[in-house]
Amino acid sequence: MTYCAGLCLDAGLVLASDSRTHAGVDYVTTYSKMRVFKPAPDRVFVILSAGNLAITQEIMSHVQRDLDRPPDGPHLASVDYLFEAAEYLGRLSTEAQGRHAEALHEAGVSGDVTMILGGQIRGRPHGLMMIYPQGNWIAASPETPYLQIGESKYGKPVLDRIASPGLTLEEGGRLLLVSLDATSRSNITVGPPYEVGLYRSGDLALCSQRRFGADDPFLRDLQAAWQAGIGGAFHALPRFEWEQEASRLGTG
Amino acid sequence: MTYCAGLCLDAGLVLASDSRTHAGVDYVTTYSKMRVFKPAPDRVFVILSAGNLAITQEIMSHVQRDLDRPPDGPHLASVDYLFEAAEYLGRLSTEAQGRHAEALHEAGVSGDVTMILGGQIRGRPHGLMMIYPQGNWIAASPETPYLQIGESKYGKPVLDRIASPGLTLEEGGRLLLVSLDATSRSNITVGPPYEVGLYRSGDLALCSQRRFGADDPFLRDLQAAWQAGIGGAFHALPRFEWEQEASRLGTG
Repeated sequence: MTYCAGLCLDAGLVLASDSRTHAGVDYVTTYSKMRVFKPAPDRVFVILSAGNLAITQEIMSHVQRDLDRPPDGPHLASVDYLFEAAEYLGRLSTEAQGRHAEALHEAGVSGDVTMILGGQIRGRPHGLMMIYPQGNWIAASPETPYLQIGESKYGKPVLDRIASPGLTLEEGGRLLLVSLDATSRSNITVGPPYEVGLYRSGDLALCSQRRFGADDPFLRDLQAAWQAGIGGAFHALPRFEWEQEASRLGTG
Repeated sequence: MTYCAGLCLDAGLVLASDSRTHAGVDYVTTYSKMRVFKPAPDRVFVILSAGNLAITQEIMSHVQRDLDRPPDGPHLASVDYLFEAAEYLGRLSTEAQGRHAEALHEAGVSGDVTMILGGQIRGRPHGLMMIYPQGNWIAASPETPYLQIGESKYGKPVLDRIASPGLTLEEGGRLLLVSLDATSRSNITVGPPYEVGLYRSGDLALCSQRRFGADDPFLRDLQAAWQAGIGGAFHALPRFEWEQEASRLGTG
């Protein structure tokens, strides 16, 4: 399984992914799910992926080959809008799935790949999109500034409480690490190393790309601080009325 | 959809459920999913349910009829162990599903019902069990003191962080309300009124059964306190090393 998430903030983009891949519980391995493409000085793209690993690698190999040997049609160095990059990735994805559809279907294996694309092309706003296995896409918006792929439910509550376009990039990075950590605690197939990329709007290059292993001191501090903070929030919750009554009477 | 959860603590049991039922987004109604049976002075049972509402009501109607007109076989007033009550409910469930299996299958509707059973029979320990649609069951344990049914993922992270057998009943009640509230924020088909039942081991009757509507002042206070606590925990997280550096140099 996989869990990746992205935030589209006023200040820029935050992207994060876990690195655990499994084919059954006895073949759990580590693969990066964050790829950064900077095919020209006027643009940068970050792609997160969840789903069939072979199809994902095929898509990314085609992306790179199209940059090395530009085809007639669109590719990451040629597109004028971010949505055209999303369309291009969606087409590569459905084509790769289609090439293996029959064999995968016979084996009862899903070839689905879902991607998050974040990036910016000079002169256009930065943006964040999710590309479905069917090749279509949706974009994040100020009302819904986050997108998630893979095992997304466990990490969603904290996003629903905290995510807003006004967060700083660093706050966004902390939020996605907390969201990843919540997922990892509740689902053994999601886990570190976590990768976090920060992109400041207009920079056309990531300002930070960090990898946090399970023993990373910062990640451990963050996990401990969050656990302590949640515990503190829990113990500060209001008491039921009968507890207040018992306390007032000195019987509790 | 539905979300119900139970805690098996050293002190007793905590059970909680939402009350939202839907058949499509345009038919969302309110039904209690917590039923308390006290069929004899030496026992009490609480049943939470998720799944097909018609099958659930059929199961509960048979439970009550078996108490009114005792059959030859086991029923809630006759069983000697809590697991026999779980087996009995599992049998009623598979029988009810079986009666409608063909018609439901033709309509493409699932007849599945999952239940949580909590209770105690005098002279035996209190216990908490989940009864699967297939009629089999599992029990909560000190290592896994909580059970969930329905839309369980959003509410699981906080249980994974806080749930432990040493919680007081009131702490357990607050924890399940927070877990319900997290689910409700992330999934529109789960919502108040929430019902919470507390059972102190040995009492053979609930010591508290409360219903919290969306406008309940205590629920609103709890939601506000939790949101504030989460926000506080988030803002207290450690800063990335470059933020610390910038702060130390007075440039941040």
